[in-house]
Amino acid sequence: MSSNPVLDDEAAMLLAVEQAEKVKGATYPNPPVGAVILDAEHRVVGVGGTEPAGYAHAEVVALRRAAGLAAGGTAVVTLEPCDHHGKTPPCTEALLAAGVARVVYAVADPNPVAADGAARLAAAGVEVVAGVQADAVTTGPLREWLHRQRTGRPHVTWKYATSIDGRSAAADGSSQWITSEAARADLHRRRASAEAIVVGTGTVLVDDPTLTARLPDGALADRQPLRVVVGEREISADAKVLNDDSRTMVIRTHDPAEVLRALSDRTDVLIEGGPTLAGAFLRAGAIDRILAYVAPILLGGPVTAVDDVGVPSIGRALRWRYDSVQPIGPDLLLSLVPN
Amino acid sequence: MSSNPVLDDEAAMLLAVEQAEKVKGATYPNPPVGAVILDAEHRVVGVGGTEPAGYAHAEVVALRRAAGLAAGGTAVVTLEPCDHHGKTPPCTEALLAAGVARVVYAVADPNPVAADGAARLAAAGVEVVAGVQADAVTTGPLREWLHRQRTGRPHVTWKYATSIDGRSAAADGSSQWITSEAARADLHRRRASAEAIVVGTGTVLVDDPTLTARLPDGALADRQPLRVVVGEREISADAKVLNDDSRTMVIRTHDPAEVLRALSDRTDVLIEGGPTLAGAFLRAGAIDRILAYVAPILLGGPVTAVDDVGVPSIGRALRWRYDSVQPIGPDLLLSLVPN
Ligand SMILES: NC(=O)c1ccc[n+]([C@@H]2O[C@H](COP(=O)([O-])OP(=O)(O)OC[C@H]3O[C@@H](n4cnc5c(N)ncnc54)[C@H](OP(=O)(O)O)[C@@H]3O)[C@@H](O)[C@H]2O)c1
Ligand SMILES: NC(=O)c1ccc[n+]([C@@H]2O[C@H](COP(=O)([O-])OP(=O)(O)OC[C@H]3O[C@@H](n4cnc5c(N)ncnc54)[C@H](OP(=O)(O)O)[C@@H]3O)[C@@H](O)[C@H]2O)c1
Repeated sequence: MSSNPVLDDEAAMLLAVEQAEKVKGATYPNPPVGAVILDAEHRVVGVGGTEPAGYAHAEVVALRRAAGLAAGGTAVVTLEPCDHHGKTPPCTEALLAAGVARVVYAVADPNPVAADGAARLAAAGVEVVAGVQADAVTTGPLREWLHRQRTGRPHVTWKYATSIDGRSAAADGSSQWITSEAARADLHRRRASAEAIVVGTGTVLVDDPTLTARLPDGALADRQPLRVVVGEREISADAKVLNDDSRTMVIRTHDPAEVLRALSDRTDVLIEGGPTLAGAFLRAGAIDRILAYVAPILLGGPVTAVDDVGVPSIGRALRWRYDSVQPIGPDLLLSLVPN
Repeated sequence: MSSNPVLDDEAAMLLAVEQAEKVKGATYPNPPVGAVILDAEHRVVGVGGTEPAGYAHAEVVALRRAAGLAAGGTAVVTLEPCDHHGKTPPCTEALLAAGVARVVYAVADPNPVAADGAARLAAAGVEVVAGVQADAVTTGPLREWLHRQRTGRPHVTWKYATSIDGRSAAADGSSQWITSEAARADLHRRRASAEAIVVGTGTVLVDDPTLTARLPDGALADRQPLRVVVGEREISADAKVLNDDSRTMVIRTHDPAEVLRALSDRTDVLIEGGPTLAGAFLRAGAIDRILAYVAPILLGGPVTAVDDVGVPSIGRALRWRYDSVQPIGPDLLLSLVPN
């Protein structure tokens, strides 16, 4: 930032996406948005992300940092600026007051109350460009929030770690670690931006995990998701999942719908297994995204990452499609969405 | 070709790689090589691939097509031109006789008898450039041949089709088709360039496959690999694998080493399963490459693509690395090599 790099709209939007990713998890029910202010010569003069609910929106944070240099410049925002008096004044007003000449955004606001910011800006003589890097935003920082806007329900991701032959542990049950340090660091970043991590009692009884989001040095991340344990069996009061690192909810059911009802005010829910719980959610059609960390190893044996998904014959296979495929260290991260 | 495109060295080498892929499978024990002749203005004036053993090398085929336009031009070849009087005269002589000014190749010839073509050409005043697109050649058309030169043994690929959860069939055994038409077309191209396809008796008894290489319209490809069935059980005289589409070898053993001894004069061997045979080859360390066609579907259930790979605990996992990851229609093709 000190050298004030010159960026075009596309590059500035990717920087805005980074800003949004940084605040993802801290803003719900508000959207995690990122903004970049470019001056008239397209130099970066301010960046920002949404503050937690009730505080400033991304545009306002970035304008504040730009401190007067926005006049005649461009505001690059991942979501259409709002034109709505809520807990904060409309972003459109802040942008007009700062004298920006152009507003570039990725995704239109689907919320009718907040919408029409673009129209308001255009009416005031601002050049408005929509749809820049829209995919990066809809599959990135806003994926879960947009899902919730569209469906009224939390976005549910099933994450698992597996060998290429679909195992989640070796024959003797040992599974630390299937995937690499790089994959685990990625998972911990996702945990920090999720609002709940769900496992079955089986995982707690066998692995005794803490289910916290940790930094690479082992320290707790700033944000910790709610931990949720599903099943009838009693878990020990000494279980690490009940420690003070975060809050924990125990739900004595086998019904995925009941679990999701208990989490109905959340936006971003992460199912972390094991196979019994994952199978139940898959059979119920309750998974919106699969994230598979696939290690380039073979394990064989009886411990598969998922068992019964309710498919009797090939014609009834659960059909998904690859949404992205990304190397993470030596592993692959496959993202799939329903077909 | 009619418009004689102008190509730089890199692009011309990729065209030479395509030529080599076309003849892959038809030339063993000789290497499948591709060549492109550019005139002095870098226009493509001839392309060619190695003819079957005993006939012309790729350079000679391409020079013949260039018909005199090679003088002062460049020969782009996937493998260092040979300087050896074998069944055919040395390619170096043909290149010098044609008056080429430059020779560009990807990979040095590891065969001491054929080698030193580059030195001979340089000594004759030809500009020689080595290493262009070497990766595309060593992981592409020459992968299996180079392996054989290095180790003296056939290159063994284990190919399988699987769901993302590691299943090769649904719970009731149905598996047609796990992967897409595009993936099957890719497999049939690979079969056509392999010299042997190996399965266990289990696959023959359950699936009754023909194990031929077919074109997208269902017709037989020009080249058919030897079909190899491994196991003690008798297979029916009516089994399709015994039909007249290609030759078939039945090997009554459970020992991968014995299978490979029977195929020791081959270069490119494809193991097509099932899980029992694949597990035996994996446990024996007899697989040089894994090709997994991974469909974006979930099947669950008991039928895994591989069962016992001899791994008791996670510390003894069979460790590979991703060599390439490629979308094929809706599926992914993962290529792995030993780590
Ligand atoms: N590779 C990975 O990514 C990963 C992730 C997590 C766990 N794992 C492994 O998974 C293994 C544990 O497997 P698991 O299947 O026992 O774990 P699990 O799915 O976490 O827990 C199973 C338990 O969940 C409860 N449950 C909730 N909904 C259910 C339903 N619809 N039907 C049946 N039971 C339901 C039941 O608890 P009650 O019996 O108490 O009612 C059941 O026993 C461990 O070895 C762990 O290492 C792997
Ligand atoms: N997804 C895929 O890519 C794919 C590919 C092929 C097959 N499949 C599926 O695999 C299933 C058949 O499974 P399978 O495991 O029976 O097939 P298989 O591996 O082809 O055949 C098993 C047989 O191979 C023989 N064999 C050879 N070496 C052996 C060893 N070291 N140890 C034990 N037996 C050895 C044995 O025959 P004897 O008993 O006669 O001695 C054994 O019964 C079918 O349902 C088929 O659809 C899937």
